[in-house]
Amino acid sequence: MKILVSNDDGISSPGISALVKALKKIGEVTVVAPLTEQSAVGHAITMKYPLRVSEYFKNGDFFGYAVDGTPADCIKMGVRNILQQTPDIVISGINLGSNAAINIIYSGTVSAAREAAIMDIPAIAVSVTSHTAKHFDFAAKYSGELAQMIVKNGLPAGTLLNLNVPDLPEEKLKGIIVTQQGKTKWDDVYEERRDPYGNKYYWLTGNLIEQDNSLEADHFALKNEYVSITPIHFDLTDYTTFEEMKKWNLETSMKKK
Amino acid sequence: MKILVSNDDGISSPGISALVKALKKIGEVTVVAPLTEQSAVGHAITMKYPLRVSEYFKNGDFFGYAVDGTPADCIKMGVRNILQQTPDIVISGINLGSNAAINIIYSGTVSAAREAAIMDIPAIAVSVTSHTAKHFDFAAKYSGELAQMIVKNGLPAGTLLNLNVPDLPEEKLKGIIVTQQGKTKWDDVYEERRDPYGNKYYWLTGNLIEQDNSLEADHFALKNEYVSITPIHFDLTDYTTFEEMKKWNLETSMKKK
Repeated sequence: MKILVSNDDGISSPGISALVKALKKIGEVTVVAPLTEQSAVGHAITMKYPLRVSEYFKNGDFFGYAVDGTPADCIKMGVRNILQQTPDIVISGINLGSNAAINIIYSGTVSAAREAAIMDIPAIAVSVTSHTAKHFDFAAKYSGELAQMIVKNGLPAGTLLNLNVPDLPEEKLKGIIVTQQGKTKWDDVYEERRDPYGNKYYWLTGNLIEQDNSLEADHFALKNEYVSITPIHFDLTDYTTFEEMKKWNLETSMKKK
Repeated sequence: MKILVSNDDGISSPGISALVKALKKIGEVTVVAPLTEQSAVGHAITMKYPLRVSEYFKNGDFFGYAVDGTPADCIKMGVRNILQQTPDIVISGINLGSNAAINIIYSGTVSAAREAAIMDIPAIAVSVTSHTAKHFDFAAKYSGELAQMIVKNGLPAGTLLNLNVPDLPEEKLKGIIVTQQGKTKWDDVYEERRDPYGNKYYWLTGNLIEQDNSLEADHFALKNEYVSITPIHFDLTDYTTFEEMKKWNLETSMKKK
């Protein structure tokens, strides 16, 4: 199994090291990851600047390729220029911090996996729920098992799996649930400060508005110490509203021909 | 009608000026837009750096607020700190270049409107199909009409409209179609160059793989000179695969309790 690995925390992150270590037991791993942290970059791609690629070493050993761009850039560059062939699967992570509910929209980790799905390559995004995560073992091992299941069961073109794991030792995990993207979101607050010259600047902060109460919602499953797997896709069409809008009189301002 | 306007081409763009001029006829307009061009930033938000806000003038007149961040940052900042109340609608554009099919995923213009939808504010993203667009008049006027229709007909919470207009004079437009996100996507090619010091760098380029042949697909409608309106949302759950995956044996590697 040929596996392309990326992330959004950057190639130096302990999360990607734990993932690569586990995946090397089951396949041929190539790492193409951002040189610097790219959290919350969403599905950004780099078009205004050129990209550079460098070889990256950990503890004196070649670890992978670092790209001075976004997670989505890394997948494009990894498939087109580095592998020059389609891997069997792309795995992005392990992210430090959950990517559930509305955070799926902002996540660089998910965008790397989504870029693979756009190329019709099966993909998994994997995150552990703490920004100071200590328990990567189950997430790393289970990413590999899930990859094997995907190769066996197949995954529809354009679908990727978003795996989130509570930051707990394996024996504390309550189980694994197939979930939907939850409704939990942020109430944004900008914290105003002044620089040493008296000018205002603002830090984005916020409070979570928890709007999920079913174990089939990703955020709620994680809160209750379950592993969450959400199949997501990139067809953003709202089909219900699509049907509804056909009844609107949309040509009001068009000149009659 | 209180209207918050943003874009991704930056506050200096002619597209946002054309939009604001038309919208001032139907409502009270506040502009909060990126200081610099933010094309293809996807749904990035700024968390690692603080943001600054400045007043921006065009031809000596106050035009709006410039934020040194992303389109999504502008909406958060505009609603929470500048308006300090919820506008009736958010309109993002007019973008130079279409945002249809896969480009919806990469678009900063769409992400500004989506950020509004996340806040339960009705929103429209509007683009004209050329990077050297000359025909903003219909797109600007019709954005206002669509805003009035939305206020009248309502739009489900979490849904936004993605409006794309061919770069043609109004009398050449064939009509208006409610569309779905098309399947057209990019075949990426990195162009390799060498800097004056002999080091390699790569520019993202690519060829469009056109995979739409129905007028109900956004890209195909635009190609055939129709105005395209696509209702989109941010629930990424793939419900078909969700049901399918419940049959998978997912707990294979969990220790039995």
